[in-house]
Amino acid sequence: MDTLINHCRHNIPPEVENVALLEGLDPGKAAEHIITGRLVIPHNTRRKHKVIGIGDICQVKVNVNIGTSNQLCDPALELQKAEAALINGADSLMDLSTGGDLLGMRKELLRLDTVIGTVPVYEAVRRAGNAADLEADLLFRVIREHCNQGVDFLTLHCGVNTDVFQSLHEDPRTMGVVSRGGAFHVAMMASQGIENPLWSEFDYLLEILGEYDVVASLGDGMRPGCQDDAERLAKSVEYLNLGRLARRALDAGVQRMIEGPGHIPLEQIGYNVRMIKELTGDAPLYLLGPLVTDIAPGYDHLVGAIGGSVACMYGANFLCMVSPSEHLALPRVEDIIEGTRASVIAAHIGDLVQGSRKAKMQELLMGEMRHNLDWEAQFATALFPEVARVIHDRDPGDGTCSMCGDLCAVKMIRDIFP
Amino acid sequence: MDTLINHCRHNIPPEVENVALLEGLDPGKAAEHIITGRLVIPHNTRRKHKVIGIGDICQVKVNVNIGTSNQLCDPALELQKAEAALINGADSLMDLSTGGDLLGMRKELLRLDTVIGTVPVYEAVRRAGNAADLEADLLFRVIREHCNQGVDFLTLHCGVNTDVFQSLHEDPRTMGVVSRGGAFHVAMMASQGIENPLWSEFDYLLEILGEYDVVASLGDGMRPGCQDDAERLAKSVEYLNLGRLARRALDAGVQRMIEGPGHIPLEQIGYNVRMIKELTGDAPLYLLGPLVTDIAPGYDHLVGAIGGSVACMYGANFLCMVSPSEHLALPRVEDIIEGTRASVIAAHIGDLVQGSRKAKMQELLMGEMRHNLDWEAQFATALFPEVARVIHDRDPGDGTCSMCGDLCAVKMIRDIFP
Repeated sequence: MDTLINHCRHNIPPEVENVALLEGLDPGKAAEHIITGRLVIPHNTRRKHKVIGIGDICQVKVNVNIGTSNQLCDPALELQKAEAALINGADSLMDLSTGGDLLGMRKELLRLDTVIGTVPVYEAVRRAGNAADLEADLLFRVIREHCNQGVDFLTLHCGVNTDVFQSLHEDPRTMGVVSRGGAFHVAMMASQGIENPLWSEFDYLLEILGEYDVVASLGDGMRPGCQDDAERLAKSVEYLNLGRLARRALDAGVQRMIEGPGHIPLEQIGYNVRMIKELTGDAPLYLLGPLVTDIAPGYDHLVGAIGGSVACMYGANFLCMVSPSEHLALPRVEDIIEGTRASVIAAHIGDLVQGSRKAKMQELLMGEMRHNLDWEAQFATALFPEVARVIHDRDPGDGTCSMCGDLCAVKMIRDIFP
Repeated sequence: MDTLINHCRHNIPPEVENVALLEGLDPGKAAEHIITGRLVIPHNTRRKHKVIGIGDICQVKVNVNIGTSNQLCDPALELQKAEAALINGADSLMDLSTGGDLLGMRKELLRLDTVIGTVPVYEAVRRAGNAADLEADLLFRVIREHCNQGVDFLTLHCGVNTDVFQSLHEDPRTMGVVSRGGAFHVAMMASQGIENPLWSEFDYLLEILGEYDVVASLGDGMRPGCQDDAERLAKSVEYLNLGRLARRALDAGVQRMIEGPGHIPLEQIGYNVRMIKELTGDAPLYLLGPLVTDIAPGYDHLVGAIGGSVACMYGANFLCMVSPSEHLALPRVEDIIEGTRASVIAAHIGDLVQGSRKAKMQELLMGEMRHNLDWEAQFATALFPEVARVIHDRDPGDGTCSMCGDLCAVKMIRDIFP
């Protein structure tokens, strides 16, 4: 197939050159990581846009989810959210729309100069009326449409097979299935008594994706939905499935990444991330959260940033924004802003912990500018300059800041150690 | 001396009984931890108030700093901040006032039914005019006054000795000294050419503290002030000093805890916390942050919650709030609220990772209430019920929430796995 992976076997395609340039990598090394599946570059062949690399040799990236629903269907508002996300540092957007004109909304987003992902089963269920009646043909048709329209990566719950379904009975979970896509597939399988078509006809799926060189984001339909569910069996059965599928996709020349849990206690993040990495041949790992407590609704963006930072310590590559309204309501624009910023901070901490030279240079510079009490340079080095400036400027200053005022330790010590 | 440690050798004092009850501990075990210095109960003998335990067998506690300065001196505002902190879950308050009527402010705070800490060197420097002119006598006099007035714990930078001072020359740091108390001591030592009196006359200090059974919080005057300073020598020289002083305090029957860094990369938190714990005989560890990136001013509360959660994984016991205005300006009431909540979330994550049964039960309950779609019970289980309620209630609901609306995975799966 005419895919990036197959191109890399013969030469270095322009997308790889671009990513190598952005990340400060040797293009040959980047190409090698594409071939071995440790790096993906989501770039539908039907669409031109800014490319990003996702994988162990790249900086950690951030995705932001937006989308209409039947409860709140305002495409203009979703475009505002998209813009707010990009301004605050999002590297990609996922359109999770389920309400109103789905195609119209998607087309608007595909005009943006950024990587776009979708979850085709949402639209398929909308068109089928409900998940129980969804047929394989329609699901594959929607997948092909999304590919043909220029979507760069698709969340596909291919690993939710009958073995996984069985594991839910063997080792029941308090929250059952909290992945919406996972729940759709389970409902479809349960009501029709069939295997998940994305599992049984995975080769056909790969053919479709390969045609447009779309990245398969192998969805975590079994991500735990609460802390206590984190040690139940279903998640691990799915890990194994995703590992096998990841190998098959790579063999077919189709780029893929893996989606990870979910609600997981802090001390379990390390081995979960390492296990997924091992089983999938170090495929790029795309994480929602992880959320390390469930009792802080309203602050799940902060909880997700804690889990995300730690996950990066063990090799996570791509963080999905969690907004303050997670588990409570659809996000407003301000929720998208706070959630995006929290994820961007976690991704930067991830870069530091993964040894990014660029990230370390930013830290060095901030230290020097703080020592110099150079406020303009501090703002310029900050991830969110205007946020810092507004807080600093609210009190009258004298070259230091109102925090310590005339008792500034930095000033005092500069006199002793000039 | 007539201190809690010495009492515990003969019987179980009421403070220990109370803490054992609050924490669900065997009182004898709590007393044993007091004797071995792994648990402290800050409770000045001159004052009655709610007691808390800080140590490995207790839940993680949160301190909130407030205080006037010359730039912003409004005692009523500081009392509002104190109230906001306590409402949002602070276990103690530190009065860091440096402006206006210091005694008046402190007296107001000492009326509150909570643990109160101070940093006497701040007042001593105010009275001396500047740090360079501060004399030992005045410093000890202020310390005794704070003890006599009923303060429960004092940050004392006893470990900043000439060896530490030397290490700043041997292995210079970008930010020098960022601890204000540490900087005062360095300035005093440098200008007068003397040893730190809190180091050279530590036994005298212990006598004063023992008289009122005040907890020594052995201050981290050398906490790194930026990521790059984290691996410089001064910090570790101070760790060793604090370890030796911790042993001497315990031998004298004086309760003490250790203050820790500071600005530290995420991957260095584990070994720093373990090293401090080892050197100090598992003394309770009180942390500011750690801050794992310096380029997110305006979001240091979030950065501190990341560092704090991870530090708890390795044994931290007491988290000091970091507010969104850290490094920029004095906190407003809303900064105290956001900072306190971030720390309370980190402390809860700390409880979970340290195996607290109570914390785990809260998680279990939230999972069940989410599965039941019981919103009132979810709010009641949440750390900040009103925050969650306001977000949830802003959209019209139908028993689920507007986040997934009619496509609620939980609802769908409950029909399949009743």
